[in-house]
Amino acid sequence: MTHHFNPFTDADGDALRAIVGADNLSTRGADLDLHNRDQSRHPMGNAQAVLWPQTAEQVAAVLRYCNDHRIPVTPWGVGTSLEANPLARYGGVSLSLEKMARILEVHADDFQVTVEPGIGHKDLNAQLARYGLFFPPDPGANATIGGMLANNAAGIRTVKYGASKDNVLKMRVALADGRLISVGSRSIKQSSGYDLLHLLVGSEGTLGVITQATLKLVPVPSLMSAVIASFPSVQAAVEAVVAVRGSGLDPAALEFIDAKQSALLRDHAGVDLEEKPTLLMEFHAVLPAALDYGLEQVRQICEELGASRIKTTTDNAERTKLWAVRHHAYETLVRLHPGYTFLIDDVAVPISQYPALIGYVEEIVAQHGIRAYMKGHAGDGNIHCEFPYKNAEELAVVEKINDLIVTKAIELGGTATGEHGVGTGKAHHMPHEHGEALEVMRGIKATLDPNGILNPGKIFPDVG
Amino acid sequence: MTHHFNPFTDADGDALRAIVGADNLSTRGADLDLHNRDQSRHPMGNAQAVLWPQTAEQVAAVLRYCNDHRIPVTPWGVGTSLEANPLARYGGVSLSLEKMARILEVHADDFQVTVEPGIGHKDLNAQLARYGLFFPPDPGANATIGGMLANNAAGIRTVKYGASKDNVLKMRVALADGRLISVGSRSIKQSSGYDLLHLLVGSEGTLGVITQATLKLVPVPSLMSAVIASFPSVQAAVEAVVAVRGSGLDPAALEFIDAKQSALLRDHAGVDLEEKPTLLMEFHAVLPAALDYGLEQVRQICEELGASRIKTTTDNAERTKLWAVRHHAYETLVRLHPGYTFLIDDVAVPISQYPALIGYVEEIVAQHGIRAYMKGHAGDGNIHCEFPYKNAEELAVVEKINDLIVTKAIELGGTATGEHGVGTGKAHHMPHEHGEALEVMRGIKATLDPNGILNPGKIFPDVG
Repeated sequence: MTHHFNPFTDADGDALRAIVGADNLSTRGADLDLHNRDQSRHPMGNAQAVLWPQTAEQVAAVLRYCNDHRIPVTPWGVGTSLEANPLARYGGVSLSLEKMARILEVHADDFQVTVEPGIGHKDLNAQLARYGLFFPPDPGANATIGGMLANNAAGIRTVKYGASKDNVLKMRVALADGRLISVGSRSIKQSSGYDLLHLLVGSEGTLGVITQATLKLVPVPSLMSAVIASFPSVQAAVEAVVAVRGSGLDPAALEFIDAKQSALLRDHAGVDLEEKPTLLMEFHAVLPAALDYGLEQVRQICEELGASRIKTTTDNAERTKLWAVRHHAYETLVRLHPGYTFLIDDVAVPISQYPALIGYVEEIVAQHGIRAYMKGHAGDGNIHCEFPYKNAEELAVVEKINDLIVTKAIELGGTATGEHGVGTGKAHHMPHEHGEALEVMRGIKATLDPNGILNPGKIFPDVG
Repeated sequence: MTHHFNPFTDADGDALRAIVGADNLSTRGADLDLHNRDQSRHPMGNAQAVLWPQTAEQVAAVLRYCNDHRIPVTPWGVGTSLEANPLARYGGVSLSLEKMARILEVHADDFQVTVEPGIGHKDLNAQLARYGLFFPPDPGANATIGGMLANNAAGIRTVKYGASKDNVLKMRVALADGRLISVGSRSIKQSSGYDLLHLLVGSEGTLGVITQATLKLVPVPSLMSAVIASFPSVQAAVEAVVAVRGSGLDPAALEFIDAKQSALLRDHAGVDLEEKPTLLMEFHAVLPAALDYGLEQVRQICEELGASRIKTTTDNAERTKLWAVRHHAYETLVRLHPGYTFLIDDVAVPISQYPALIGYVEEIVAQHGIRAYMKGHAGDGNIHCEFPYKNAEELAVVEKINDLIVTKAIELGGTATGEHGVGTGKAHHMPHEHGEALEVMRGIKATLDPNGILNPGKIFPDVG
């Protein structure tokens, strides 16, 4: 489908200032620059104006105006995305939710909180600590709740607590034509009509703009433990993952680091690891004995699968130290590759296909004589390949390899993206992954956004 | 929206027999009768033919033919529904999935199973026992997987394991125009395009017909415990629910029985209960000490909230006996009301609103001088009110009260249906619950089923 868009004019600026207020629209270069980049390798966006609405009604009015005038609108959280998800590709407006960042209500007895979309999840959790509750999805960076929901962000604790889509109950959403709708319910259970909530979560701002969300919260775990172990092969590590999950131990994190990156962390970050596939796990419990029992079970599983350097701890300081390996892994990579940029891939497969996927990556990486590091959320079958490159020529090579890996993941029954979303970077894989279902997605897009003004050029391999 | 449908003719019969085989189409009265009733009070359906396709391709071909000839198609599982969800309201075809009931593949390492839609969940779990895995949603009756997914059925263990929508990863679906699409992924994580999977789950056969599903499985719990306790008030019982959930004890079931029904169970089922609000809970663990610790915590919570007759057990036989109270509650009601039929309501609210909802029910029931019993999945804020009636006049009264309760639940931030679905019974509440979002649902319906042949008259308060 193709749409005709109009360029953003001074008259549009005047009309939109009347909606959001004179101070809340900018066409200054510095503001545009900030909103035309995310944390990815992808080309800069070309937004022509940045708007900061302060209410849902303003968001709706902006959309209605832009829809009437065929001006693209690309919602903006804080720009921690990795697939250019919030970068304007067809000009128009970057709609920042930065000034809609309030906690509206804590429903402590319901284990829920209602927030505006612009609040960062770390900021939210800092505020929620006093209630002994937290919002579990954690993509690493301090992404906004709106951005996390729009992209269905996940992170390391998804294996126990689910992704963003599993932790939201209700949203208020502004549609392209300026209607404001409520989707979902504060009732945990709902079987009432079509699940528009989950249709909108993960739609990357192409179907509507989230103006409010009620999130599920869980009690902050009282006790935690951690395990780290080196395995003789990826297959053995995956068997450990399956055994741990099958034993009902309900891990809160189950992370994989490949042999090459483990060696690098040993040599350059002072971590006691071998050059072998490594698993890092976390468990939560309410009873110390349950934690000890779980660790003993995990140790047995690891030993039976030939693991070495198995370390377990229930001590908080020691656990934090073990996890530092994971948290600083990317920084260590960056530090050891001065002058390089990283392409970070994100695919996911059924866990049984993890060894096949990793074997394939190792094979093509060797074939092309390039460097690549892998780590992933093994509990979910999600893996990130990190490819350093230093110029356009090298980028072209790693992008080609990236495409091969995505294709392989889809062939193995997996997906082009586990948690980073489609944006522009994965759009060309959508026909392969979804087949005829992509046409159904297009039909829904046309129904909700007939003029295609909402974040055009994302998800679909054309203007959408 | 209104659609024109054609009556089912002999020529249609011949054409459809050519698709499904001569033995797999019936227009006999006995077959129609069986497929025109579910377990609800609602009027019988008026299907004119029953079809039993054996493959997804046959389902697709049937839909294509019926779409071309404007013949309504209403998918049929096994008829355990309570809101007339699978009853034909505008004639046409009842599409039984009874002959598509195979387990296609057990992906044990992935904790997944791929099945056809016609298999009963109890039958599925019997087959899965050998793997130490099970599919957790359990609506009580042996509903088919296809029916459970179409209606997003839930049941008593939702508080820990989620509803049907939380336990499905991928589906194959036949659309009205005969296209077959795949939605979702066997990857646990997916952030790739619109979530059509969850759009289709709970759409009650109005958007497509599920021909295959890959379900999430969990390990069969090795240890279970149960607790039963009587509370001085609904408020105290709800405070216990909040405290148990907040303590991180992760209950596997958290059931409520109202004072009146508790007394009736005491007087007529020989159960040691008081005429007080009763909570029945279940916990799963891998370590005996964790189970004991959990029970001790729960006992303390119950005692602090003034509960009496607190019984806890980790013994399987004793636990089964405690649970018999819940499982036989409905039978006991039926036995004690000879000549009566029951209207069973299904609403859900945020748990903080449970006391307000129950107080309201007690108030209007007293006002109208009728009998009503309540039990519910308190952990989810879901409640079922059971109203005995013996003639059309009494039915009219309890239907009016039912409507008042649904209206109240929506006003309290809840939903018209937690787990039974909309069918025809709740359709008139959809404008109140969803507002403008209902128009978006209509738009999606029109996109996927432009001739409105799929289960017309359900979800929407008109032909849809």
